[in-house]
Amino acid sequence: MDSSARINIVEYRNWSFSETEDSVASERRLRVFSADKEIISLLCTPTMVKELVVGFALSEGLLKVGGDSFRDSAASSLSWCSERIEIFWKDEEIEAHLPVDAPQAMATLTSGCAKGVTFISGEELPEIHSNLKVSVHTILELFREFHKKSELFMSTGGVHNVALCDEKEIIVFAEDIGRHNAVDKIIGYAFLENIEMSDKLLLLSGRLSSEIASKAIKAGIPIIVSRAAPTDMAVEIARKSNITMIGFLRGQRFNIYSQAGRIIN
Amino acid sequence: MDSSARINIVEYRNWSFSETEDSVASERRLRVFSADKEIISLLCTPTMVKELVVGFALSEGLLKVGGDSFRDSAASSLSWCSERIEIFWKDEEIEAHLPVDAPQAMATLTSGCAKGVTFISGEELPEIHSNLKVSVHTILELFREFHKKSELFMSTGGVHNVALCDEKEIIVFAEDIGRHNAVDKIIGYAFLENIEMSDKLLLLSGRLSSEIASKAIKAGIPIIVSRAAPTDMAVEIARKSNITMIGFLRGQRFNIYSQAGRIIN
Repeated sequence: MDSSARINIVEYRNWSFSETEDSVASERRLRVFSADKEIISLLCTPTMVKELVVGFALSEGLLKVGGDSFRDSAASSLSWCSERIEIFWKDEEIEAHLPVDAPQAMATLTSGCAKGVTFISGEELPEIHSNLKVSVHTILELFREFHKKSELFMSTGGVHNVALCDEKEIIVFAEDIGRHNAVDKIIGYAFLENIEMSDKLLLLSGRLSSEIASKAIKAGIPIIVSRAAPTDMAVEIARKSNITMIGFLRGQRFNIYSQAGRIIN
Repeated sequence: MDSSARINIVEYRNWSFSETEDSVASERRLRVFSADKEIISLLCTPTMVKELVVGFALSEGLLKVGGDSFRDSAASSLSWCSERIEIFWKDEEIEAHLPVDAPQAMATLTSGCAKGVTFISGEELPEIHSNLKVSVHTILELFREFHKKSELFMSTGGVHNVALCDEKEIIVFAEDIGRHNAVDKIIGYAFLENIEMSDKLLLLSGRLSSEIASKAIKAGIPIIVSRAAPTDMAVEIARKSNITMIGFLRGQRFNIYSQAGRIIN
């Protein structure tokens, strides 16, 4: 399904009205079921849906984890399970069905509430250990590439973009009407593709709230870079968890809010 | 409590690093309790907290409503209750306690799940009947005023702004790190101040998703105007419910996505 739709609108330009056609971002309800019971309902851009379901479950802590990042202990059960997630496209909404005999880990999903979205509670986040050091030049180049890619996608002006990259290039790019969803799509993709996170960077178009920081930390990503501003709580979490947080990257300028030692001039 | 905080950061400017101080948006956890049981946990900008609690409860449908807008039937029970909401400011978070003997309507809050946020499900939305007609000149003037006010607040670059206005001026202005919260603060304020909504406009800095449209419709606001883009679902909801949705207002230009007849040149 497409991430945008054409609709008729009325434009006001040069002091007069005219009818025209325009692109707007698609938004769909994604309902997640386990054993015919609805466990989550999200509003999202209808792309990378399986990645979103997996990423949401992982980063919201609906899967129990044991190690420094969720990949350590959840890997075996979820990768087994994810192959059998069924996605049904309906007219008005999308249904994702988890296998009924999913492993125990997946079953903890059902302890959530119907039509509710569980946000990250004030739980302990891991400390990130990574020897990654990246040059300013690399950061600026990657972000220029990210910005170029975003413009291609941004005909509607209504989505947030997120990318995962290594020091050379963008590995995966996601867009969503929700900042959280876009990050979850990236995390779900990386998990399904078994991508090691300890030497990766997360690039974002949107603001850095505590929830975005938590998702990156749980996924084990040591550097996050955004065009937009962080909140004080996001900075606090980043500092405690030892990740590098960069914000307000515009042109050749940016701010480093935590762990500046990973960025070398 | 302040809506921003000063922190130490590392700036990268003119090819070199320097340490400096900067303002970032404050983010706090707001936990809502009823009879010592936690029923909602939100992350928010710590201003207009009571308005946020009331607005969230109203616009998420946690209070049952009977008429065209939620004010018709919920008014007596909530206004009674809201006077006795207690707000406690703690170091790391804010607690809002609803009165234990809250009316039945308020008690439906407890059917939500702990630490979860109930998003609007695909329920029926009311049709808005309003004879309000507003000139392009008025829209542009109000939005210029809104933009000016936003810049005053926006030292951090990290918040969304929302205002409620009549044809003459801005009545109330709210900011929040979350788009939804900013709208809920406005709705809560209007409810507590007993403001009639059928001749009002809602001005927003952020994107128009289906949830934002639903909140405005439930509150009975006939015209919503944003600087940013709508989604297809938001447009569909606006058309079905008969509200006027304006997006991409920049300078003297804007797009009308529904009910263009309310805007006169």
